[in-house]
This record gives sequence, structure tokens and C-alpha cells, in this order.
Amino acid sequence: MVKIAVDTAGGDHGPGTTVYGASLAMRDNAGLECLFFGDQSQIEAALPGFADTSRMEIIAADEVITDEDDPLRAVRRKKDSTIVKGLKAVAEGEADAFVSAGNSGAIFAGSVSIIGQNPNVTRPASVTVLPTVSESTPHYLIIDSGANIAAKPEHLAQYGRVGSKVAEQLLQAENPRVGLLNIGSESTKGNAFTKETFQLLSADEDLNFTGNVEPHTLLGGTHEVVLTDGFTGNIMLKAVEGTAGILMHDLLEKIKANSSLAENDEKMMEDLMYSYINRYTNQDIGGGFILGIKAPVVITHGSAGEMMFKHSVEMGAELSKSIIFQR
Amino acid sequence: MVKIAVDTAGGDHGPGTTVYGASLAMRDNAGLECLFFGDQSQIEAALPGFADTSRMEIIAADEVITDEDDPLRAVRRKKDSTIVKGLKAVAEGEADAFVSAGNSGAIFAGSVSIIGQNPNVTRPASVTVLPTVSESTPHYLIIDSGANIAAKPEHLAQYGRVGSKVAEQLLQAENPRVGLLNIGSESTKGNAFTKETFQLLSADEDLNFTGNVEPHTLLGGTHEVVLTDGFTGNIMLKAVEGTAGILMHDLLEKIKANSSLAENDEKMMEDLMYSYINRYTNQDIGGGFILGIKAPVVITHGSAGEMMFKHSVEMGAELSKSIIFQR
Repeated sequence: MVKIAVDTAGGDHGPGTTVYGASLAMRDNAGLECLFFGDQSQIEAALPGFADTSRMEIIAADEVITDEDDPLRAVRRKKDSTIVKGLKAVAEGEADAFVSAGNSGAIFAGSVSIIGQNPNVTRPASVTVLPTVSESTPHYLIIDSGANIAAKPEHLAQYGRVGSKVAEQLLQAENPRVGLLNIGSESTKGNAFTKETFQLLSADEDLNFTGNVEPHTLLGGTHEVVLTDGFTGNIMLKAVEGTAGILMHDLLEKIKANSSLAENDEKMMEDLMYSYINRYTNQDIGGGFILGIKAPVVITHGSAGEMMFKHSVEMGAELSKSIIFQR
Repeated sequence: MVKIAVDTAGGDHGPGTTVYGASLAMRDNAGLECLFFGDQSQIEAALPGFADTSRMEIIAADEVITDEDDPLRAVRRKKDSTIVKGLKAVAEGEADAFVSAGNSGAIFAGSVSIIGQNPNVTRPASVTVLPTVSESTPHYLIIDSGANIAAKPEHLAQYGRVGSKVAEQLLQAENPRVGLLNIGSESTKGNAFTKETFQLLSADEDLNFTGNVEPHTLLGGTHEVVLTDGFTGNIMLKAVEGTAGILMHDLLEKIKANSSLAENDEKMMEDLMYSYINRYTNQDIGGGFILGIKAPVVITHGSAGEMMFKHSVEMGAELSKSIIFQR
């Protein structure tokens, strides 16, 4: 059994979405159990009829850390919050992973202070799983996607090592291909930071480092892991997700408005568009996670719907099997 | 009359594409003249029947700077190249703008040494025009999209001032909205570089600075000018163009392969997809240009087809009317 600590209060939609999404994950994964942290009566009201109550437990947590809260202060003061209690359950071995759509700064800070750091990673990073159009390499990890904006070359070298291990489990990839995000593929390209990082990664014999990689080739499925500082990674992530989401919605509107298509053809085209939107805005994948702490913590969008939350719970379960989180 | 110096040799396709594209631009713009630099007989062979030969001149340039050439050395040594001779024609006032699909490093280096720098810009930048889904703000400028990768805050302040002027002409925008590319919209977000740049831009009373902006909102048409260092700008540019191009081609393939649509409906959907591909991979816009030199130089993709090259010639003509290039 894998036990997931679920923050039912976090996110824009509350227990109606988080409890339902987690229940869907339990329904589809027989070996999954959930610890629901939050308001007992709200959680009970949100449980769908199909929920297997023998594989779940409700743990009262009466405080909520909101997006307006200062992360560090909130983690210190709101001891009865869903985030603090959920992370403690993971730290104490009562759960294998924590999943939340709440205040990402608080989750990050709480993860470091309550669960503790992985000794092989000096500064924890955010990891986002991004989709590709390739059937053989459908996803890749971007590390760091926004946490460590003043990264040093040695941090990226650590992300490469630990990130490769986690990609083996999460992406079912043997000998994951690791690239360094850069503005050209030649080894001499980039700024002082990328040049120094390139040397460190090249020297690591345990790493399948393929060299520099540019953003537009990644979507074709060329790598399992791409390394970058948190500033550049966050810009790239938002550019990719934003472009996919806005363009697909715009195209969908055009199809709906101007189409002379027959009704069933229009429906078919709309379904195709929604499948692209869900895939390329990460609904199908779930959230991101933190690299550099001792247990898996999945942080999903505040706006996550039931399906995205379900996939985040499943990601937490998958991550807990990785060698980097064995304890 | 506006005179454009055209490098007919640059790019993957040669005079058949560049001369044809420029001839299309002349056909659609009565006030346009072209100086064609290159191989006389090849240029003559490439001229389409509709070309108005009274508005063009062929100037022999027998050397070609290839993509394999070292930019600085090539500009110094290949005095008879299309790039060096074309830039000289602009420097000497025989043409108003230079357009090329050739070696971008050589064009950049040659522009600085032959045409000379704008005294208001310490380090020239690359500008790319990107499309949005908005009807009221269909395009915006990204400065710098890849030239000055070790930018200082004062460089971006200069780009804001000069870039606003050029946006007024090129985008027909009054009081262009200027944003600073960042990983969050709050003024406290980002790294030391963006924080210092934010202060400089805020202090400039001549600038319509709106604050920080994230990549995913730009596609909605929120700004006319977005400022960033050349490294981040190049990553964003390739992420946006790459995502749009790869996703749209993937979707087009799916429509072609699996569709049960009637033939004319399939054709309609394909046309719609191609219109998106052309718009969002910049075929409809043309190339980028250099900010910080005394005359307009447009650099387009080596792979540019006839229509993209046509639009690049038209961009050169439009830029030559901007106040920043008046001499």
C-alpha cells in the first residue's frame, strides 16, 4: 500500500475537487490509500459514492494557509493547518507523499523545514513534467522550473544526478538523456553560467549528458531531463504552457464560431482540441514536485480540477517508489 | 520612394526565393524600390514576369558569406559579399534599409561596423516581432531576443526608450505599453538583475512602463514592448515559436490522418491550421531587426520562404520611416 497525505483545503475549489480527485485516484489504483487533512464534515460531504472508505482516513486540520499568507510565517504559526499536519505525517512515516494545491511557497518552505533536505542537493528545486508530441518520449522533466533563481553551476550538477534517478522511475526511462537548456546547441554557446555548468555536467561520468539543448527541440521528445536555473526555467515553462493554452483555446473558438461543419464533425474537432488543451496545459500530468527533500511532495495548480488533482495524487504515489525517496 | 538593399544570396533557397519575395513586396507597395545585391545572371533569371524593372537595380556582388564563416573575419575580408556591399549602400545613403536571410552574426557585426551605432544605445539588441491572439494588439516587440546575453540594467532602460519609438511606427501604437519580462508580476519578483532594471524603468517618466509581465500573458496582447536580457529573450522566443509550430503541425497531422471529415471540410480545417502556423511561426511577419544602429537592418530566417521574405522587405520599408532612423 502507498499512503498519500492529501491537503483537502488547498486550491481554488476546496474539498469538492480535492477529495473527489483523490477518490478517483484510489478507484483506479487498488494499492493506494489516502489520509485526508482538513475539515471533517466538509470532507465527508465531498466523498463520492464510489469512494472505498476502508482505504482512507480523515484527520482534522482546522487551519488553512491561504495564498495571501507569508509562507515562512504561516508554516511556523499555523500548526493546525492542512499543510503543516500533512507534511508532518510524511516526515513521521505515516504517509509516503504529500499532495496539495495550496500556497506553493508555504509548501516549499514547510517541506524543507518539516521533511528535511536530501543531503545530495544543496538547494531544493522545483520540477515540472512537460509533455512532448513524441510517442516514444511522451514527457520530460524541467529542473529547475522556478525555485532556485540564483542557481550556481554545482546546483545544476546535483539536479542532473538526482533528477536522472527520479526520471528512471517516473518516466520509466533507462539511462535518461540529460540536456542543458541554452540558446544554441554548440558547447561554446551561452553565458558564463551555462558554460561553467556545461563543463561540470560533461565531467560527470554517471550522467548521460547530451550537451546543450534549445527550447524548441524539447517538445519533439529529445530528452528526459533538461537542466536550467529557476529563472530561465520558469520563463520557459510559462512560455510553453501559455502558448499551448492560449493558441488552442483561440483555435477552438474559431472552430466553434465560423465552422460550417456538421454537428458531429464539430463535436469531433472540439474533442480533439480539448484533448490537446488537457495534454499541453498539464491537466493530464498533474502538478510539479520538489527535488532535494527526503520524501515526495507534489504541488499542483490552485486552479486544478478533479482530473488534474487525481493525476497529482498518482504522481505522488509513483514518486514514492523512486530510489531517491527510499528511507 | 523607399529603397531597400536586398541580399539575394543569403538564406537556404537563394535568389529564386529572395528576388521573388522582394518582387512581391514591390508589386504590393507602389512606393518601394529594390537594390538587388548578388549574381547578376541568377537575379535576372529569378525575376518574375510581373516585376517592375523600373523600380529595381542589380548590383553585382560576387562573394557570399556562408553560415560557416566566422562573422567578424568574414565582414573584414569578404569586401565583395552581398552583406558587406548591401550594408555599405545603406551606410552611404544609397538605400534606406538592408534585408537579408544570411549569416546573422555577420549581418550583426557588419551593421555595427559599417552602418554605425545609435549613440543612445550602448550595446545593440535583436528585436523580434511576435504575434498575439488579440485583435486590438496583434503584435508586440521582444527586446532583446538574443544579441546581448550579458545585458546590464541600463541597457534595458535604453531599449525601452528607443524600442518605444520604433513600436510607435512599426505597430502603429500610441504610447506603447512597456513590460519587463519576469517570473511574477509583483514588483518584488525576480533576481537582482530584474529588480534593478525595474527601478530604472519605473524612474523613466517618458516611458509607459507597466511593470513586470510573465510570458503567458503576452500572447493575449497586453503589451507593445517587452524588455529582457538576450539570453532569457532567446529562450522565450524559441519556446513560443517552437511550441506553436510543433503543436500546430502535430494537430494538422492528426486531422489529416484520422479524420472522417468530408473532403471540403478537411480542406477548410487544413487551411485554418496553416493560417495559424504561418501567423505563429512568424511567416506572416518577416524577420527580426537590430536596435541600436543608425539604419534599419532586417534579419530573417535562413529557411524563410517567398512570403516571409516579402514581409521582411516590407518591414525594412516600414522601419525606415521611424523617427529613430531619420538622418
